[in-house]
Amino acid sequence: MSVAASAAFLALASVPMVSAQVTGDSLVNAGKSSDDWVMYGRDYRSTRFSELNQVNDSNVKKLVPMWTFQTGVLDGFECTPLVSGGIMYITTPWNHAFAVDAKTGAQLWRYDRKLPDGLALCCDAVNRGFAILGDRLYMTTLDAYLVCLDAKKGDLIWEKKLGDYQAAYSATVAPLIVKDKVIVGISGAEYGIRGYIDAYDAKSGDLAWRFYTVPAKGEPGSETWEGDSWMNGGGSAWVTGSYDPELNQLYWGIGNPGPDFNGDVRKGSNLYTVCTISLNPDTGKLNWYYQTSPHDIWDYDGVNEQILIDEEIKGKKVKAMVQAHRNGYFYALDRTNGKFLYAKPFCKVTWGKVNDDGTVSVDPKAMPTKEGVPAFPGAAGGKEWVPMAYSPKTHLAYVPVIENGATFTSHEIFYKKGIAYWGSALNLIKDQAKGALRAIDVRTGDKKWDFPAKSPMVAGVLATAGNLVFTGDAEGNLIAFNAKDGNVLWKFQTGSGIHAPPITYKIGGKQYIAIASGWGGWTAGFAGDGAPWLKNSRKGDTMYVFGLFDETASK
Amino acid sequence: MSVAASAAFLALASVPMVSAQVTGDSLVNAGKSSDDWVMYGRDYRSTRFSELNQVNDSNVKKLVPMWTFQTGVLDGFECTPLVSGGIMYITTPWNHAFAVDAKTGAQLWRYDRKLPDGLALCCDAVNRGFAILGDRLYMTTLDAYLVCLDAKKGDLIWEKKLGDYQAAYSATVAPLIVKDKVIVGISGAEYGIRGYIDAYDAKSGDLAWRFYTVPAKGEPGSETWEGDSWMNGGGSAWVTGSYDPELNQLYWGIGNPGPDFNGDVRKGSNLYTVCTISLNPDTGKLNWYYQTSPHDIWDYDGVNEQILIDEEIKGKKVKAMVQAHRNGYFYALDRTNGKFLYAKPFCKVTWGKVNDDGTVSVDPKAMPTKEGVPAFPGAAGGKEWVPMAYSPKTHLAYVPVIENGATFTSHEIFYKKGIAYWGSALNLIKDQAKGALRAIDVRTGDKKWDFPAKSPMVAGVLATAGNLVFTGDAEGNLIAFNAKDGNVLWKFQTGSGIHAPPITYKIGGKQYIAIASGWGGWTAGFAGDGAPWLKNSRKGDTMYVFGLFDETASK
Repeated sequence: MSVAASAAFLALASVPMVSAQVTGDSLVNAGKSSDDWVMYGRDYRSTRFSELNQVNDSNVKKLVPMWTFQTGVLDGFECTPLVSGGIMYITTPWNHAFAVDAKTGAQLWRYDRKLPDGLALCCDAVNRGFAILGDRLYMTTLDAYLVCLDAKKGDLIWEKKLGDYQAAYSATVAPLIVKDKVIVGISGAEYGIRGYIDAYDAKSGDLAWRFYTVPAKGEPGSETWEGDSWMNGGGSAWVTGSYDPELNQLYWGIGNPGPDFNGDVRKGSNLYTVCTISLNPDTGKLNWYYQTSPHDIWDYDGVNEQILIDEEIKGKKVKAMVQAHRNGYFYALDRTNGKFLYAKPFCKVTWGKVNDDGTVSVDPKAMPTKEGVPAFPGAAGGKEWVPMAYSPKTHLAYVPVIENGATFTSHEIFYKKGIAYWGSALNLIKDQAKGALRAIDVRTGDKKWDFPAKSPMVAGVLATAGNLVFTGDAEGNLIAFNAKDGNVLWKFQTGSGIHAPPITYKIGGKQYIAIASGWGGWTAGFAGDGAPWLKNSRKGDTMYVFGLFDETASK
Repeated sequence: MSVAASAAFLALASVPMVSAQVTGDSLVNAGKSSDDWVMYGRDYRSTRFSELNQVNDSNVKKLVPMWTFQTGVLDGFECTPLVSGGIMYITTPWNHAFAVDAKTGAQLWRYDRKLPDGLALCCDAVNRGFAILGDRLYMTTLDAYLVCLDAKKGDLIWEKKLGDYQAAYSATVAPLIVKDKVIVGISGAEYGIRGYIDAYDAKSGDLAWRFYTVPAKGEPGSETWEGDSWMNGGGSAWVTGSYDPELNQLYWGIGNPGPDFNGDVRKGSNLYTVCTISLNPDTGKLNWYYQTSPHDIWDYDGVNEQILIDEEIKGKKVKAMVQAHRNGYFYALDRTNGKFLYAKPFCKVTWGKVNDDGTVSVDPKAMPTKEGVPAFPGAAGGKEWVPMAYSPKTHLAYVPVIENGATFTSHEIFYKKGIAYWGSALNLIKDQAKGALRAIDVRTGDKKWDFPAKSPMVAGVLATAGNLVFTGDAEGNLIAFNAKDGNVLWKFQTGSGIHAPPITYKIGGKQYIAIASGWGGWTAGFAGDGAPWLKNSRKGDTMYVFGLFDETASK
């Protein structure tokens, strides 16, 4: 009889020794060849572009799973994990969270939030990830709190109430750290909240400032709201913004007005809903705004991420920002002042058009009625919240696209606290929802290449210096593309639909690609009757981490 | 702009064209170099040994996940998947089931059973897998039905009631097909049922015979039950049996008597609880029995699988059968007549001993009392239900071992329909539960090699002609061992504890290894205070399929 076990194998995975010290400087420099992934959008520009190139177009076929981590929490798994000091930080649906050895997948700690009953959630019980600063992690919660955790142990340091969950205020956004502040946006516009963006002191948790996305009576912009409609005017801010440290401007996309589909009770352009806004991150004061869909009646949230680019547009190098808007247009703005540069449709659009001066002309035939009218895109837009990526090497933005239309109806509606405040039903046009990954030249808004897909593409995107683009599909495949021409180079079946963004990081000289795979309960908005084959999709709960195959690696 | 998509990639995975025609002959010959895996124990001998050797001790380091399948159903994932005609058939907790393309992981169909409220389940809502015959699948259910499904579409063909779930009858066993019959055993001895093994006509679903594991008053064996105690005498039969086609004998292990821990209300040896029995599969008549633990009072179920071996034991070639019993002894019997050959402890045992003639001597100091006494092994035994494997090449059985003891107490108890009928509480001795994979020479019962593990080993085992043994651990690793010496050759972290048996199969010339990974809610019996670090284990729901890395493979 021989004893074959080694003591090393018996021991639980050893805890990485590098501490998770993320400083303000590391955040400002996050985009510069860092091996870690320390913020939601990878860098303040929200590029989701990594300089890592060990995995590249010549060897990506060797990519295999290194480890997987089943969280045991089903529902839409929308997390962008953070990696710092050898540790991966994961948030899950229902506000559970985990710290995991990023090399081995061994659990280091878990955090479980006790949530109250009676949460009003329009679109699944999701969370989009942590922010990190120093040894602290920040997460928003479905019951509208900001929680601060000890990154070493997962213990709660403090929690701050963002809003009243019984009035349907909730939070799903990954916070953004700017200097000493934690910046978050609120959710709940489907229930008649009045939205805001908050900044909290990262140390004490004290509220530093609040910017209401819907001005109160008498404030600038309040003239765009009839009567008391501003009080339930919506304007959620549920996708993480971007930041330009040199200009010291914070950019954020603002969501739909309330009620979503009945504009009669809120006549006016409804500022600052469906806007891109610029704030001073120190004070919360408005620098400028640009309203993409004035008086929106199709739920074309303006929340989608803004990628900050320095590119030549119309013959001139510009400090610009680009956004693939739910209304189906790809926008470029001058980020110094919000000046409109261009907007081009990136999917089928029938609600009207963006004019050359950035104003919009709405087609009256697309206005929701009691009987219902078709309009493209559907309410989830031509692109969901899932973030695109941008590569400065190719000048391309890689946009996960939903090609879909819906029949929009408009009904009478009255506000009641905590109750859905939509003013309509909508149905995706039968069997017509499909998807694509679409590469768009950010200098012109023109399509460069296109990868059509059977189902809506609702996973985020990662671009790397290895001439690669990664995204997931509704069928569960993580797919790698040649960044220049869109050729499919590799894929892996994760076994549940993907609705999260991939990231990449490097530990001990080895590059990893990570993706959360877990389909959620809420696909009605972007699939529904449009892609009925997705109705029986299986939920999931697993983080997958890939690396280049190496049989000599000690796993 | 280039269109980079290929039509082939857009299409849903094509359905394998080979039909799932499993005949009686394929079952009899299942062990002979078949590329499929058509029954629970691989073959009627329950060897879980495969002749496939493409994956072997020289190349196992190249094993990588080929695809994964998240079922979206949490809780203990104990399924042995079947593979036939290119299709994998999976059952999950809560009696959901799936057919999946075994090469790609694409879902072909799903079956969802509506279960009633108020199920009485001692040990998680598990299921151990399908049986297959022709184009039909057979599954038992938690509400005590046998369901017959169309293997092509997953539609229900018929269902037959096995017992009254309101009286705590339930079923979790993977059925065994013998000729034209579907053979199943009932669960519920923790609630005072009277157990049985049933045979149903595979075509019509009509009951062919029932063998009660507890004889009624006046029947042979009834003298081993005092008074009316037989009426709630337990004797579940929840692990799939074995079959010898030449001898035409069906072998089955019978579980604990009821109540589990208080023997005073059921004086006598309590036949046929904690027995190995042989039945005529055509008639259900008893051929012989061997009682391993007469009048059991430690819940040492005799359910564990019987592996049929033809080996030289004590100088003579014998048609034998071996079992790693929950009471901590490794038994060999003559399977022609049930004659005792040997029994040797394979873990720490303090309840008493098995004598040289196969009788037992109980240590009175180990008998449960009101105050509680320690005894080894604990109630889940030295080995859980998870099946060991046997390789005819090495003459070794590979046993997943739990090293643990418990403090057993005995209380007064009265039977009440549907209510737990244990007659005690038990607690695993603190911080002392650990595990091992232990290789035992079936010719002698002696240990050949040993792989100790931090936590109880409660995954099943697979042995292959590639000189490999596979099993999983509680920490989530699937591990490959050198079958001869137990050296660890490879492992992969699946991200949830493993409590299921691995299988292997071959499609299109490529060998695959599959394992269900998903920890359950019920670990108290084999971990509890004994391995408190497992209390916060994450649940899981994922089937993993591995193959040798090949970058040219079109995935």
